Amino acid sequence: MGTMTPTTPTPTTPTPTENSLLTPAQARARFRDGLVTPTAGWSDGYAQANLVAVPQKYAFDLLLFAQRNPKSCPVLDVLEPGELAGPLLPGGDIRTDLPAYRVYVDGEQIAEVPDATDYWRSDLVAFLVGCSFSFEAALLEAGVPVRHIDEGRNVPMYRTNLPCRPAGRLHGPTVVSMRPIPASLVADAVRVTSRYPGVHGAPLHVGDPAAIGIDDLARPDYGEAVTIRPGEIPVFWACGVTPQAAVTASKPPFAIGHAPGHMLVTDLRNSTLTVP
Amino acid sequence: MGTMTPTTPTPTTPTPTENSLLTPAQARARFRDGLVTPTAGWSDGYAQANLVAVPQKYAFDLLLFAQRNPKSCPVLDVLEPGELAGPLLPGGDIRTDLPAYRVYVDGEQIAEVPDATDYWRSDLVAFLVGCSFSFEAALLEAGVPVRHIDEGRNVPMYRTNLPCRPAGRLHGPTVVSMRPIPASLVADAVRVTSRYPGVHGAPLHVGDPAAIGIDDLARPDYGEAVTIRPGEIPVFWACGVTPQAAVTASKPPFAIGHAPGHMLVTDLRNSTLTVP
Repeated sequence: MGTMTPTTPTPTTPTPTENSLLTPAQARARFRDGLVTPTAGWSDGYAQANLVAVPQKYAFDLLLFAQRNPKSCPVLDVLEPGELAGPLLPGGDIRTDLPAYRVYVDGEQIAEVPDATDYWRSDLVAFLVGCSFSFEAALLEAGVPVRHIDEGRNVPMYRTNLPCRPAGRLHGPTVVSMRPIPASLVADAVRVTSRYPGVHGAPLHVGDPAAIGIDDLARPDYGEAVTIRPGEIPVFWACGVTPQAAVTASKPPFAIGHAPGHMLVTDLRNSTLTVP
Repeated sequence: MGTMTPTTPTPTTPTPTENSLLTPAQARARFRDGLVTPTAGWSDGYAQANLVAVPQKYAFDLLLFAQRNPKSCPVLDVLEPGELAGPLLPGGDIRTDLPAYRVYVDGEQIAEVPDATDYWRSDLVAFLVGCSFSFEAALLEAGVPVRHIDEGRNVPMYRTNLPCRPAGRLHGPTVVSMRPIPASLVADAVRVTSRYPGVHGAPLHVGDPAAIGIDDLARPDYGEAVTIRPGEIPVFWACGVTPQAAVTASKPPFAIGHAPGHMLVTDLRNSTLTVP
């Protein structure tokens, strides 16, 4: 146990960056043109989405898996076979509009590419799943720091020992994202994020990473490690990479996901996702 | 327009009735034994659920329909083909444990029965959808009257002119339930029910029934009319009968639903459904 240094919260009005001021359509155009980067902090005010696309014959299992694991898999929309755009990306193309994609065959990742067009199949059903980036602006407004934004890194994500509730042929572990929070602000972090159940909501777990099977916070399974300062508690939120962990565990014949942290920037306003 | 009589809210601690004190398992046993009655007020503190069961080849369409229309179709659980019980009705039997069922062939209701066993098929996927009865105790605790409980009637339900967002082969109108609320308490009714998004949440519409295609509040499409007193505003919540209206509109070859107001009493605590 380190010394508990009292931390004075700094109410943070995020400094607008060029990326934060882009419209979602402008952001998607950058990625369509080939830019590869994590998307935390892009298009302030708009929801970002995880992607997982599976063949139509797996679509019911995946939708039921999401329904049964709503904290990790809050579905924002589903594009049926042949649909490449929709209300979340009007005029867009789901195959090109994310910064990077992972392609899976029999549960094994065979490629990570900035453009999934060459791998896309006409029978794919694309699930767009809420992302915790949506509540980060609200955390910052409440004076709760978001370390991976401060450090310009991808958020750290970990596979836990918390099994998802299976559905049909799909099973797998819950994946979490982690933000180190000063002990005095943990309650605020819970309170603020509870208002966003459509993008993972309140934390799944506060402190004690070993209890959920995380041995070393410095070695995330996805994304990048961030600094944890004395007096900070690691706080874990369910993560929309969970469906891809289910792909890895359940080995459907084919799937395409986003590269973790490299999200779809959608036209959905975060403000529409709040509850009282 | 009637005279606006100021209404003094009477904070109502509901008087426990025998039915309200039954455990969900006891309630389900009564219905399994043949009792046919609306279930408002039964097993206080426990969620009730709408039922709609469709053949497996319609299950993805229905789950996507629910996903796309979350206010009217908040899915609490799904029983896959062959499953007759689950966490919401442990040790139960979905074919017998509701007070009454409606059976549909090609979208036409062919029977209303207290036991669906003779009609059940091994390929049916049963959707359990949240019900606004879950928030009625919270309304009563906040001093907001619930007229159909006071009058011992089934809740009045109406088909509106608000189309659901279609999914695959399924489409249809939004169905709403209506509660007359004193004008001074409408804001409280919104505030209280907003905390229950998993059971329809905040109202869809407040006042002006004609604007959503309801011509005569005295003639509901499902359930029973209730008294609307001077100074009361009709407040409309999305209703879990909506999937059955989609069955009627979309005409899948077969479906079984609950008789409106005659719900599955589940083991799920209402308190687990609240948001901050």
